[in-house]
Amino acid sequence: MKVLSNKIENIVEEQLYGLQSSNSDIEVRFDPNFIIRKKSKNKTKVILISGGGSGHEPLHTGFVGYGMLDGACPGGVFSSPSPIQIFECAKKLNNGCGIIFIVKNYAGDIMNFQMATEMLSLEGIKSQHLVVDDDIATAIGAPTNQRRGIAATVIVEKIIGAAAELNYSFEECLALGKKIITGARSFGVALSACTMYTTGESNFKLEENKIELGVGIHGESGIEKVDLMPVDEITDVLITKILSDKDYKRTFNSWSFKANKWIGNSLISKKFKENDEFIILVNGLGGTPLSELYLVYRKLNEICKKKHIIIKRNLIGSYATSLDTKGFSISLIKSDDEIIKLWDKKVKTIGLNW
Amino acid sequence: MKVLSNKIENIVEEQLYGLQSSNSDIEVRFDPNFIIRKKSKNKTKVILISGGGSGHEPLHTGFVGYGMLDGACPGGVFSSPSPIQIFECAKKLNNGCGIIFIVKNYAGDIMNFQMATEMLSLEGIKSQHLVVDDDIATAIGAPTNQRRGIAATVIVEKIIGAAAELNYSFEECLALGKKIITGARSFGVALSACTMYTTGESNFKLEENKIELGVGIHGESGIEKVDLMPVDEITDVLITKILSDKDYKRTFNSWSFKANKWIGNSLISKKFKENDEFIILVNGLGGTPLSELYLVYRKLNEICKKKHIIIKRNLIGSYATSLDTKGFSISLIKSDDEIIKLWDKKVKTIGLNW
Repeated sequence: MKVLSNKIENIVEEQLYGLQSSNSDIEVRFDPNFIIRKKSKNKTKVILISGGGSGHEPLHTGFVGYGMLDGACPGGVFSSPSPIQIFECAKKLNNGCGIIFIVKNYAGDIMNFQMATEMLSLEGIKSQHLVVDDDIATAIGAPTNQRRGIAATVIVEKIIGAAAELNYSFEECLALGKKIITGARSFGVALSACTMYTTGESNFKLEENKIELGVGIHGESGIEKVDLMPVDEITDVLITKILSDKDYKRTFNSWSFKANKWIGNSLISKKFKENDEFIILVNGLGGTPLSELYLVYRKLNEICKKKHIIIKRNLIGSYATSLDTKGFSISLIKSDDEIIKLWDKKVKTIGLNW
Repeated sequence: MKVLSNKIENIVEEQLYGLQSSNSDIEVRFDPNFIIRKKSKNKTKVILISGGGSGHEPLHTGFVGYGMLDGACPGGVFSSPSPIQIFECAKKLNNGCGIIFIVKNYAGDIMNFQMATEMLSLEGIKSQHLVVDDDIATAIGAPTNQRRGIAATVIVEKIIGAAAELNYSFEECLALGKKIITGARSFGVALSACTMYTTGESNFKLEENKIELGVGIHGESGIEKVDLMPVDEITDVLITKILSDKDYKRTFNSWSFKANKWIGNSLISKKFKENDEFIILVNGLGGTPLSELYLVYRKLNEICKKKHIIIKRNLIGSYATSLDTKGFSISLIKSDDEIIKLWDKKVKTIGLNW
């Protein structure tokens, strides 16, 4: 397999140079590497920083800008940013209003963000992290702390980003973040694995007639190899997995869902209340063209209509990628009037712009 | 190779259903298939319609909306829309201010748009087409009518779209279009060919250590197979091909370039005038992740700086794709104050939004 690169060990820095030279709204710092918004007129906003391994672009580096992140800390490809990166980025951005780290649920990421939090605390800077854990593949029916964070992170960053811009307080941003994360679930599928930069090979092989269910965003294998199905069936499998996740079902009930009668793996929904709404993300994993994601959305929309699931907003595209993986994930994010209002607010980043 | 699909023969219609159900600003008509903006408050604007084979999404269907296209006519995958599609779309949108078709330079497309123009003329509807012919691979140094239309079409649609929104007249839109097209050149490269839906195979094979220079956007082979190089070298080859195209050199001279001394394939530029500006597009072909396009841009920016080529605006992403082709193209679009002003105007489509 082939990738566009010079020296593999320079790939992250070179991408950052590309980013810097293409976008005058951001500033890239090197050694340690981080990206910050060049100017924010709002001096009393909560600071939002995200980060994680590289290889998921535009997540997170492409989401720095008005209405979303103040900073991003890219680690090496598929590896965590160091505590120093996070600490320096936070110190540079600190305005006294508190710093929230949006972190995907991986042990290395959490450890390093935690260490940065402690280092900041020693300097009297208040920070806390929000852990996104939307991927049910790693823990179907299991509690929060076992689920990975994947594509729903994009939605979390957009919505808290809007809230921070509107001067939500530190505590209000955290509470909002927890609300969004509680209602967010994702599930992914791969048609082929990504090319790992270090080896030039894939971590797992898929025969011509197989797909891999439950893949993450680091080229790791999923939970089940199944035969290649029509896209309608794949879509049905993914959304059914999400809706039949026991922990998510509990979330539904605790939110407001009149939920229903569950038979085996499929949800027989009688009637949701009219304000039961979702933002739905169909996320390409890097090697899948946009046109195919629209095939997914067509079926998804049909299924949701049948199940009385209201799609208030949708996002279709490659936002949280896994290098050149062919495949996609579906994310459901339970929403309400506040979430939709924030979703619709202006955003100006490379990855999202409206 | 694998694609997400149900029945191959339904793939275009199903994508259109997905598009329709995801975007309330557009209306999709079937049989014949076309897409139109749902409502334009501006009743005295020139109508802009584009079209061509499917498989290049978001081009063109994803560019229907405020500040860009009024309508798009998607043919089958990699095949021209029929005259009836174009005719019906134009008739539906006609407001008496004239219709401009933006057409990529392929015999089938031009023939069918020409037939539609004649059919419209019989009904007293004024229309004309603008042919985009930016791809120098098909005719290095040759005159306009031998070059294919590829990624620069995106830029043409954005800029004329803004002009039409500002009520440029029919003739003014045509003149502007010709100006942009005259100054637009592109060149592409593939690391691997796309999977053709009809056969499940690629039209050409590339060994692990080879890349294909001069590919188009229909899975067709290019003009030269060369060894896989570092991305910096690939970028250098592409931009050098564009800048050393004799016909483009003539364009430079005729525009305002103090152009310089040409030695073999490389441009030794002394000094361009300060107002010599370009919009540069690094366009992914569908299977290439965004991160790798930023590596291209890094080098491109460096080369342009050295050559005193001013990049006034850039666009980096997968906008004119070729199914799941791994690769990219570079486009240079000579600009001036008018072009930049129009580029910066608001646009609200699935593919471009600012």
